[in-house]
Amino acid sequence: MADGANGRAGGDVKAIFRQIYLTLKAELLEDPAFDFTDDARQWIDKMLDYNVPGGKLNRGISVIDSYKLLKGTELSDNEVFLACVLGWCIEWLQAYFLVLDDIMDNSHTRRGQLCWFRVEKVGLIAANDGIILRNHISRILKRHFREKPYYVDLLDLFNEVEFQTASGQMLDLITTHEGEQDLSKYTMPVYRRIVQYKTAYYSFYLPVACALLMSGENLDNFVDVKNILVAMGTYFQVQDDYLDCFGDPEVIGKIGTDIEDFKCSWLVVQALELGNESQKKILTENYGKSDPACVAKVKSIYKDLDLQNVFFEYERLSYEQLISSIEAQPSKPLQDVLKSFLHKIYKRQK
Amino acid sequence: MADGANGRAGGDVKAIFRQIYLTLKAELLEDPAFDFTDDARQWIDKMLDYNVPGGKLNRGISVIDSYKLLKGTELSDNEVFLACVLGWCIEWLQAYFLVLDDIMDNSHTRRGQLCWFRVEKVGLIAANDGIILRNHISRILKRHFREKPYYVDLLDLFNEVEFQTASGQMLDLITTHEGEQDLSKYTMPVYRRIVQYKTAYYSFYLPVACALLMSGENLDNFVDVKNILVAMGTYFQVQDDYLDCFGDPEVIGKIGTDIEDFKCSWLVVQALELGNESQKKILTENYGKSDPACVAKVKSIYKDLDLQNVFFEYERLSYEQLISSIEAQPSKPLQDVLKSFLHKIYKRQK
Repeated sequence: MADGANGRAGGDVKAIFRQIYLTLKAELLEDPAFDFTDDARQWIDKMLDYNVPGGKLNRGISVIDSYKLLKGTELSDNEVFLACVLGWCIEWLQAYFLVLDDIMDNSHTRRGQLCWFRVEKVGLIAANDGIILRNHISRILKRHFREKPYYVDLLDLFNEVEFQTASGQMLDLITTHEGEQDLSKYTMPVYRRIVQYKTAYYSFYLPVACALLMSGENLDNFVDVKNILVAMGTYFQVQDDYLDCFGDPEVIGKIGTDIEDFKCSWLVVQALELGNESQKKILTENYGKSDPACVAKVKSIYKDLDLQNVFFEYERLSYEQLISSIEAQPSKPLQDVLKSFLHKIYKRQK
Repeated sequence: MADGANGRAGGDVKAIFRQIYLTLKAELLEDPAFDFTDDARQWIDKMLDYNVPGGKLNRGISVIDSYKLLKGTELSDNEVFLACVLGWCIEWLQAYFLVLDDIMDNSHTRRGQLCWFRVEKVGLIAANDGIILRNHISRILKRHFREKPYYVDLLDLFNEVEFQTASGQMLDLITTHEGEQDLSKYTMPVYRRIVQYKTAYYSFYLPVACALLMSGENLDNFVDVKNILVAMGTYFQVQDDYLDCFGDPEVIGKIGTDIEDFKCSWLVVQALELGNESQKKILTENYGKSDPACVAKVKSIYKDLDLQNVFFEYERLSYEQLISSIEAQPSKPLQDVLKSFLHKIYKRQK
């Protein structure tokens, strides 16, 4: 069951999930709260297709997988539909963050295409499109969940997670973008805080929290579950940082540039913690430069410090701790949900 | 009573209102949903002081005035406090829109100071600050209204109004910013639609809707009131457009640049409706250019078409229609609320 998203049944789920995107889009394009012109409708149509459905959809689909595991029995068509709607709300949230992050980071490409703000005639209108994506979530939730007893909890949940993500983004921006490049800011507590808020809440906690609300649960009773998922999200981001440097570009589908981009990566934070004064000096002089010779010097320090094995040890330890926290959970279905998340990411190569 | 905001008692209200900003800011800087660093706390502190309290505060204070009129008796300290909190939520919403609009419009100054994104070390971090301002509203509402029976309606209200404002901004952006300058897009239906969504809902309807919710009302029963307030908001924007060209810069505190900026102003829309082919040709050739000779040609057409008197006639008619709609309302206190709004803006010079 935990492998649902990978097996044949999972394939069906993905097809159903994709289909529901079209339903939601059609509803938004006829929203009576706004008197659309033809131009406006076409703009939103194109903007949605460009930004919302093109990702891996893991976050969205995990709502359905989680809800199935929590419920324990087959879902009705309506339950599948509602779980898909919440899954899409998370994909919309992700699209909103990405559109705005790409503007702020001045990025070039995203999901194998130009960033939305770089598309002709878009430019900074993209900032407002990001806002509209966020507002679509409220419109979707109102249309499909207004009468549910957990409607207000859903609104609070999306609001809180959005606030945490934006706060994490702020921390990232003021730590890594503001002023001069300064590696002394890159410490493990700073790193963990950025990852926890910017990535873990919305990518790992939010899908499970949606499934719990659909199951009639009160989220106040699931603080441990939240902590486990946030820890898992942190581990996931550490993997991302590891793969950016040590992964196979053929497999991960891109060539990492964290070193060139002066990213607050787990690798550089580890290197700063483990390196001696001379190694730290070399890092300070070479990190964040696009010159390949500088990048090579940074990588050579990573190798001298054996960061690959430091990562493997971190991975082993994280897995052990996560499994032990999961097995301390009283609910078996919830254990299954958490383990299914963990097994989807453990030792991933992309 | 309708003059509360102008008399001595009104002065007190403004002082109390300002005081509550400090309370809300202090709460946000200690929000347990985010683990602040000192840098992050200082950033938010500065960002809020820079962007939130520096306006005229009319929108915010009108929540308190409206609630007083609706209630008919003196408000308790707690009722004043809660009305102020909702008033500040509207000011926060306004700050959020302005921070993002200034980025999209590439503006230079706002409220007599540099736009936030132009402040040193801020840049496009301002886009995320805008998001954080929006998220603060959810945090404030949750802290102070979570247990109220109308909490979910407040969330729905702010969500719907935000959606309408962002949709109006989209319409404005794709009509007036996208592609080449093209005056043929500037028609009265387009103008009205932009103004209705981009300005009227949040500036006129939202404060009264907040006061109605605090009074225990169901907003579904106040569609007429919404329409009156949206009409008033439209009239307000037309005044703004008129004053940009014909107002006294000493009084309005700035020199209008709508002509240079190719703005979809009520004046140019009127001129396109009323002008003959030769006048329209001159407008097409000269509108949206910074050359003072071009601006003078546009203004001379406005004078030939007697747009000042066209405006006075529009103003007279709007007032008549609004008063007659207001007096058709069954509730006397609500009539007072609507009249107090109208009398604050009728024949304003700034």
